[in-house]
Amino acid sequence: MYPESLARQMAFICEIEKLKTVYRQNLVIDQSRQENSAEHSWHIALMALLLAEHAADSRVDVLRVVKMLLVHDIVEVDAGDTFLYDEKGCLDKAERETRAANRLFGLLPDNQRDELLSLWREFDARETPDALFAAALDNMQPVVNHYLTEGSGIHKHHLTVSQILEKKSFIGSASPELWEYTREVIGKSEKKGFYRPE
Amino acid sequence: MYPESLARQMAFICEIEKLKTVYRQNLVIDQSRQENSAEHSWHIALMALLLAEHAADSRVDVLRVVKMLLVHDIVEVDAGDTFLYDEKGCLDKAERETRAANRLFGLLPDNQRDELLSLWREFDARETPDALFAAALDNMQPVVNHYLTEGSGIHKHHLTVSQILEKKSFIGSASPELWEYTREVIGKSEKKGFYRPE
Repeated sequence: MYPESLARQMAFICEIEKLKTVYRQNLVIDQSRQENSAEHSWHIALMALLLAEHAADSRVDVLRVVKMLLVHDIVEVDAGDTFLYDEKGCLDKAERETRAANRLFGLLPDNQRDELLSLWREFDARETPDALFAAALDNMQPVVNHYLTEGSGIHKHHLTVSQILEKKSFIGSASPELWEYTREVIGKSEKKGFYRPE
Repeated sequence: MYPESLARQMAFICEIEKLKTVYRQNLVIDQSRQENSAEHSWHIALMALLLAEHAADSRVDVLRVVKMLLVHDIVEVDAGDTFLYDEKGCLDKAERETRAANRLFGLLPDNQRDELLSLWREFDARETPDALFAAALDNMQPVVNHYLTEGSGIHKHHLTVSQILEKKSFIGSASPELWEYTREVIGKSEKKGFYRPE
């Protein structure tokens, strides 16, 4: 018989199958449906692998960043995706997500529960070099997606460039180069009329 | 101005956005649509992080396995997903995928192109401990998904248990424990009638 640890790990792995049906505001490239949090996590984990050289802080540990990004949205299985610009939804986000983290990571063997809970909290606090770089990638990808999908997913939210800059400019502290790229993409989307004029 | 390397990395990262619209035969948990290769990659990369302790070969390097799994399906952006049991599609799979790998990884800076091409070839050859363990996870997840989605995605293919065992039993050489778990899930699906009687 396989060990109890494997049974608990697989209970978790089966449960997080649900992240593939937690939908975000952005669309996929052919605009046929909303992007989900699982495929978004894949995309930014790959970005971490490829873009680590651009981190401002040389202490950034790629494996820890990749782990954080693979795990960072799992709480949404219970808590749902909270749109970054939804002020009301953001009010009780921390409480909803903490409850979700305790239940979901609690399915794992104790050592892995503790490790993932701790990684998720670190990501959420955005205070360490790894968490700051991870958050930068998590915040950069949707803006690039806005441009690639012609603003179609976020158009109904009537976002202005200042609203976006307010949320995203911290990327500059994680990586001036990534922020320069992101700023350029925001400018291109603005010119194309994907955002609401101020 | 940001460096040329970043422009090339981002060209690749934008191009692989398309993997989110490469659909597999399996369905997502609420059976509302087919699973795509990006979210499948996220799922098995997380499995690698959590299940590495069950690898038969202690030389397995988790970071390399995670990298392989994040990258392993990118060729499908050009080559499409080839169903494991589609004998005709499998005939020219290698040729289609090699062409795709050269074009897609070729978008990256040379050092990263070489690294990812090499990782993808290693995965595909299934000869190293890392590649064998990665392939085991890649082959285990769909079988677990068959059970979770009540066989709905693969029902039309009329698979028999022997067909599945033929493709999947190599999992036992990567990890006897994971194979025992997988075998149990196949048995449960068989009992529920998700596969065609022999």
